[in-house]
Order: sequence, then structure tokens, then C-alpha cells
Amino acid sequence: MSIVQSLGLADILAEHSRRWSGRPATADGPVRQTYAELQARVVRLANALHDQGFGPGDRILWLGQNSWRLFETILAAARLGGIVCPANWRQSPAELAFVIEDCAPKLVIWQEAEVGGPVVEGRKLAQHSALWLRHDGDSEYEAFLASGSDEDNEKEVDPSTPVVMIYTAAFGGRPAGALISHAALITQSLVYGPARGITQDYRYLNVGPLFHVATLIDLFATFVMGGLNVFMPRNDPEEICRLVEAEQITGLFAIGPAAEQLAQANKDRRWDLSSLVALGGSPEWNAMVTVDTSPWGKRPYGFGQTESLGYSTLALLGGQGAMGYAAPIVRLRILDEDGNEVPNGTVGEIALRGPTVSSGYWNRPDLTHQRQKNGWHRTNDLGRREADGSLTFIGPKGQLIKSAAENIYPAEVEACIRQHPAVKDVGVIGTPDPRWVQSVKAIVVLKPDQAATEADIVEHCRARIASYKKPKHVVFVDAIPRIGFAIDYARLNEEHGGGGYPGEAG
Amino acid sequence: MSIVQSLGLADILAEHSRRWSGRPATADGPVRQTYAELQARVVRLANALHDQGFGPGDRILWLGQNSWRLFETILAAARLGGIVCPANWRQSPAELAFVIEDCAPKLVIWQEAEVGGPVVEGRKLAQHSALWLRHDGDSEYEAFLASGSDEDNEKEVDPSTPVVMIYTAAFGGRPAGALISHAALITQSLVYGPARGITQDYRYLNVGPLFHVATLIDLFATFVMGGLNVFMPRNDPEEICRLVEAEQITGLFAIGPAAEQLAQANKDRRWDLSSLVALGGSPEWNAMVTVDTSPWGKRPYGFGQTESLGYSTLALLGGQGAMGYAAPIVRLRILDEDGNEVPNGTVGEIALRGPTVSSGYWNRPDLTHQRQKNGWHRTNDLGRREADGSLTFIGPKGQLIKSAAENIYPAEVEACIRQHPAVKDVGVIGTPDPRWVQSVKAIVVLKPDQAATEADIVEHCRARIASYKKPKHVVFVDAIPRIGFAIDYARLNEEHGGGGYPGEAG
Repeated sequence: MSIVQSLGLADILAEHSRRWSGRPATADGPVRQTYAELQARVVRLANALHDQGFGPGDRILWLGQNSWRLFETILAAARLGGIVCPANWRQSPAELAFVIEDCAPKLVIWQEAEVGGPVVEGRKLAQHSALWLRHDGDSEYEAFLASGSDEDNEKEVDPSTPVVMIYTAAFGGRPAGALISHAALITQSLVYGPARGITQDYRYLNVGPLFHVATLIDLFATFVMGGLNVFMPRNDPEEICRLVEAEQITGLFAIGPAAEQLAQANKDRRWDLSSLVALGGSPEWNAMVTVDTSPWGKRPYGFGQTESLGYSTLALLGGQGAMGYAAPIVRLRILDEDGNEVPNGTVGEIALRGPTVSSGYWNRPDLTHQRQKNGWHRTNDLGRREADGSLTFIGPKGQLIKSAAENIYPAEVEACIRQHPAVKDVGVIGTPDPRWVQSVKAIVVLKPDQAATEADIVEHCRARIASYKKPKHVVFVDAIPRIGFAIDYARLNEEHGGGGYPGEAG
Repeated sequence: MSIVQSLGLADILAEHSRRWSGRPATADGPVRQTYAELQARVVRLANALHDQGFGPGDRILWLGQNSWRLFETILAAARLGGIVCPANWRQSPAELAFVIEDCAPKLVIWQEAEVGGPVVEGRKLAQHSALWLRHDGDSEYEAFLASGSDEDNEKEVDPSTPVVMIYTAAFGGRPAGALISHAALITQSLVYGPARGITQDYRYLNVGPLFHVATLIDLFATFVMGGLNVFMPRNDPEEICRLVEAEQITGLFAIGPAAEQLAQANKDRRWDLSSLVALGGSPEWNAMVTVDTSPWGKRPYGFGQTESLGYSTLALLGGQGAMGYAAPIVRLRILDEDGNEVPNGTVGEIALRGPTVSSGYWNRPDLTHQRQKNGWHRTNDLGRREADGSLTFIGPKGQLIKSAAENIYPAEVEACIRQHPAVKDVGVIGTPDPRWVQSVKAIVVLKPDQAATEADIVEHCRARIASYKKPKHVVFVDAIPRIGFAIDYARLNEEHGGGGYPGEAG
């Protein structure tokens, strides 16, 4: 790429500081910054980091709640080609210690109030030394920033290099840091921003955690378009309502129960929430906010994950499949176990390609190689392309079941059984079969006052999926063991005789 | 860049052919293609090209009018990392011969009807041998395409490499081929598409010439979003009206006189033009079309050039300066002759940076180096950043005048004099001055029945621009000599004693 074509996050801030110098960029409690003020602080912070030897590829770990300081830290690292990892502060000391060691940051910025206890414990456990700066209280962070010079000496940064790192799904028990580039954040902002109606007049309330991609993409789309980002450290319905009115917020992440919490907090209509363009909900909620009637407001979802920087497909583009079509800058394939594309209508692993896809995993060359084989990012999620080319999401790929030469994904069988009117929940495992390698076993929870037999469930499957995928055995239980939302397959296997999986030691 | 992040024009077509296989992609006279059909033809054409040894960096020269075949040629070259140059077919045989030699294509695709005469003459004059394919009549092009296999073997193409080349302003008398990358076309589509309201339902009529960036960006924005591109070979108001109704066209390039031509052709309201979302014009025009009331419809302009793939600033973003603010993915600087940024309010050369900027000029390393010095693309145009950071366009940079140590741009002095109520037209030159190197001389055309003296003009300038920029001499003439729209400075210098310019041999 020619240098004149290079554009990173720091370039966007630099131009905003000339384009819209006096416009508000951030607000966080009593602290407000215009784009010119943000640029001045980011320059100082980057210079202070540079003085500490921080450079391309170096990491900063953020162990604190949402704050405008996290945002300016990302922008300062962006000037130097560095990477910022906002980590989940809700983790245990041992989990935090793992993240500290795995990320191996030059600098840790942490917060004492509310989250400091486990952080301090995690620091003690971790075998890694770094410069630690507390950003709250007497704020070592502010003193550090003030130590940087105000000289605006820009450095060349390749926009395809990572600038943010987000820990995501555990593989082999260890979370992995997905690396997200400048170009990915900027490109996703250009696609997602217009889809969401984000312009330079947008005022986004960052209330969801910034270690999660769902809030991160709104933060950056609002930034790229030149809007205002308001930060709050934690979910507090009354404080959210107050801020929506005070800052004339136009967007925040509030769906379902979260929206109802706000409606409840504002049931006396103390606050004017009409600036907020939100998905429709209860009549009370709808009467308080401006209901989003745009294509997004009607179909506000799509398939995505951390490694694809959120939405890779958009339901608003239409199609039979609930997840809609791939966004204009995304390529989508459904792959079999050998990495070959399967025909429409067949379930396989969703694979992605395009500028919004993750560069890979921090310090995990093997995992990166495995997930990016042949130039396609394997999502570890199952899906099906419908006849019209749109996407239906099936579920996490999980443990493959082998029946003779055939591969069977538990999630596909589960999705089928879940459609039976009497079924409340289901988990599917493979049990060793001397003749067919494994056979399919369904563990089913029925709805109260509903009945179904083993034969009913098998027959239901026979009519809907390939015959070799239907369960050979069905057992009925009171509950499926879960870890969070995910089925605890290890326990399910243990309790119901699962085993003989491909790759599993005999 | 990781391979999983790579996305070129061929990737977008490949995904469209899965996403929207049955949707119309192109229409041209009786020939229509869905996205799946377009993909199939593009695969064949790319394979035929590959069989001829066409590969990365190789060029195809298109010497014909607008056609769906030009579009599929670009997409086929895109699959192989090649470059297509749609050249101005209105040129003389000698000019065409220069383009053939300079572009040095492996393949020339040409058209006999309407444009063949000068093309055949140009071919005879040119010292360059290539494979020539006629695309009309018995269509050697179609036979060539049919010779390619239908095997869909994708190749790695770096999206930052050029795919289109457009000849632009003559430097030193020779036009230069501006190189435009996949990433530039895709990124500009993501910014310009939403600004123009281009979605998958857009139906664009390509009537302006595709060797010009103005039509090219609409073609590609419509393609990237998944809309329909309709092609017509030449401007024919009645045929345009017929096509707008028949194809339910939503967009075409028709401003001012072009719109009035259409209104005139349709004055009996023979055709229903209501599908067309167009800029407002005369009452008759406004009654025929759907007047665009979007932000774009209200301020449908910005600063741009071929080398920035059209709009780099957008008036719809607001600001005092008529050209508005730089688009979100563009950085803007105003530079002095030494390449230093000048303060707001000062006129200098507009410089740009970002993914939509040209990679440079084909086969002109010196020119590329000169225009991209220090990582900024120098536009050769003058502008001024207003206090609010927005852009005012002054004019082409032209020949620099030197007064003692000061640099004076003729366009800036001309823009000032043009504001005088009595002035109809003006050209400014430098004349040799034994003491100050040069002095400023204004050649002025007054409006009919208006009067102004030399002293009036000098005084007018003294009040508005730096004193050293005001003319020392003013002469009044009947007309300013021009070549096309541009002032013919060579003649102006000759007729009015110009000379002594910096860099000019004594």
C-alpha cells in the first residue's frame, strides 16, 4: 500500500480535531472533551508511552470499567502501532492472572474503585512485570499523561496491524485474544454506521462493557462519523435515564429486559427520553422513546462474533434466513469438515473473509492457523445458506459425532428436536457404537404438561433431517446441565454414556 | 494483511453471485445479466485472459463507449490482479496513439461503430503491439470470452493493488494514468453510497462516460451495494427518458443543462420519470421526477478529482466553506510550496491522504514521487480551510508567480478580482521585474455596460488579500484565451509580456 493511502484511527482523530475541533467528542461524568482537546491529550499520552519505550505491537492491558480514558488510551496506542486490551474485570483473580501473563503488557491501566480487589489479587498471582498505573483516585494515569510532550510528531502505522485485542471463547480451556486492526474498525464503522443511522450528530451512551464487541463497534462507528461518545462505568437504570436526557443521547445498547428496566426506572416520566432512537418494546417504553422504524429497527440483528467485529451478516438486507445476507464487504461460505463448500440447504461451519475479520489470535500461531486455514476464518459456528443465499444460524459447532463415514453436528440435531412442540430443551451426544463408530443420543426436557415418546422424537427427526442424523436413543430428563448459556457436554457425556468421538483417545 | 482480510472487486462479485444470484446486475440494450450470470461470464473471461498470459499488473485498454462488457472486463481483470483503462474515445488518432503506447496494454478491446475511425488510425500510428479484440459487430470479444473455461479457480489479489487506470490532466503536455486500487473503489463506495442513498435497490443509468471518475464511482457504489447498472453508449435524451421508465432507474448523472434536456425531451410527458431521484431544477423537471430532499440533494457537491476517486470532501457534512468537510476516511491539509501546513484562512495547495487516494501514476515514478511527497497526495489545486475547518476551493494551482521571496498563486488573485462586481473574467500572470523577480499583472474582461479602472481593481485587491499579491498592472481586454475551460496561460504570457517564472530558464 502506498503511504498516501494509509489511514488509521489516529488519522481519523487528527482530521476530526481539524474538521470539528470544537465539537464534543467524549463525556464521562463531569469530564468533557472536544475533538481538539481529545487530540491534545492523545498526543501527550502517546508521547509519554513512547518515552517508556512503548512501540509497534506492544500491549496495554485495561483492567477497569468503561471510561473515556480507555478510549483515549486506544487512540494513543493507535498513534504508535500498539495494541490495547480491555479485559473483563468481572473475572476471578486466577483468570485475571492468566490474562496478565498471556497478554504480557508493557503497561497495565487499572481501577481501584469497585474492581480493584480481584485485580490486586490477580496481579500478585501473575508471573509478569509491567508498569501499573491506577486511573482513578489520585490518578497515576493523569500524572503519566501529563509527563508526555505536546509535540505532534506522527508516526507511520500500517492500518492492517492490530490496535485492539478482545479475549474471546475459551479453546482448550484458555481464552484467546482476538486481534482487531485499524482497517477492520474503520471499515466496520463505514458499513455498520449507516445501517444504524450513525452520523456526526449521533450521541452514543457506552453503557455495555467495552471489553465486548457489541459496545465497541458502536463506540467506533460514532467516533469515525464524528459524533459524541458518553461513557458510564456500569449499568444503572436511573443514571442511564438521567444521562439520556442530559446528553440528548440518541443511541445505547438496550434490548428486551434492559429496555424494560429503563421503562420501569422512568415510570413516573421524570426524564425525557425522546432523543433516544430505540428498538420498540412495551407500550410504556415506546411512549418514552423514539421507536426506530428504519430497516435496522425492523430487523436489528445478524450473525457475528468477536473475531468478525460483530455483524458479518445483516438481517435488514433481507432473505429467508433470519440472519440475512453477508454485509457488502464480507464473503461467506459454509464449509464441511474438510474445508470444502457445501451446497445451499446443507448445514456446515460458517466461514468468513473480508477486511472486518480478525487478524488472528495474540500469541497463538497454532490456533490462528487452524481457524484461518486456506484463507477463510472458521467461526466455529454452524449455519446453513438458504436457497436465496441468506444465512440461518444453527448453533455453536461443538463436538462432532461420527456415524460410519458421516459427520453429525449436535447443534443441528438439537435445532431440529427443539422444533418439536413438546420439547423445552435438548442436548445431543454421541455414544460409542461397535459397528457405526458412534450413535446419536438425545437428552430431552419436555415442557410441563406435555408428552412425547422416544419414537415421537425419532420420527420428528426422520421427517426433517438426513436419516443418519436422527437419534437412535432418546432419554427424558428434568434439566440439561449448562455452563452459563452453553450446554455442559462433558457432564452430559459422563451422565449418559457419551464417548468414542473422532480424535478422542480410544 | 492477513489473507482472511483480503477483499477485492472479484470477491464482491463472487459473494453477490451467491447472495443475490437471481437479481439483475447489468442491462445494456437487449442484454441483461443476473449476478450469477455476470459471475459466470467474468470467470470465463478471466480464464481466457489467463490463457493468454495476462496476469498481475498487466493492462487492458478499452477504446469504446459505455458497455456492460467494459464492466465485466474490469471484474475479470480484477480476478487476476490486472488493470483496465477505459480511455477517452473522443481523442484524435495521435492522442489515441500516445495512450496506446503509454498504457502498453496486453489487450485492446475496441469498438468499430461510431468510434472506430480514429481508433484504427491511432492503432496504425502507435508503436505497440497487443491483442486487439473488437467487441461490437461480429464480436471477437464474445468468441474470446467463450474460449475461457468455466472453472472457478480464485487467485490471491492484494486489494491495495490497482485495478482501474484513468488518464487525467496533462502534466508537461502528456496525460498521466492515475492508478485506482480495489480498496479505493470499495472504500469510496461505502462512503459515497450511503451519502447518495445507494442501496441494493438502486438502479443506476451509466450515461456519462466511464473514462470519467464521476460516472465510475456511481457504477461501483451501485455494484458494491448489489444494485442494477444499466449502460448506454452515448447521451441521447429521448433514449434516457425511455430507459428511466423501462428500467425504473433511480439515479443518473444529470445536472443543470442535462436535466433540462431531459425535461425538454419529455415535455409531452410521454415517459414516467418518477422513479428517478434527482436534484431539483426547473418546475417542469421537478414535476416529472422525485426531487432529492436528502442532505445530498440539498448540497450535492464536494472537492475531488480523478486521483481521489471523486469526492474527498462532502458539502453535506456542513461548514462555511462551500466544499464542506473531508469525508470520514480522508485527511486534508493545505500546504505551502515547501510542503508545510498553513494556518486556517490561508490559501495553499490542497493535499489528501486516505484509502480512496490514487496509488500513483502508471509508468511515471517521477510524477508519482512529486505528487506524493512526504506521504500526502498534492492535488495541484488551491484551497483554504475556513476557521471551522471546512474547505473553500480556489482553483487550479497553475503557474506560481514569485515576488521577492513571496509565492503568489494566479488562481487566488483571480478569485479575488472575480468578486469585483464589474468583472466578467480574469487571468493573472507574472511579468519579469528587475527588482522583485516578477510582478503581478491582471488581464481583465469587464461586464457589458460596466466600468472599472486599473486603480479600482488594485484597490479591490488591497482590501481583500495580502498586499504583495495585488496586481501592479491591470489591462482590459475583450476575452481571456482558453483551452476548454482552462485559461491558456501560454498565450496570455505571450500576449501580455509574462515571464521570469521560478524555475524558468532565464
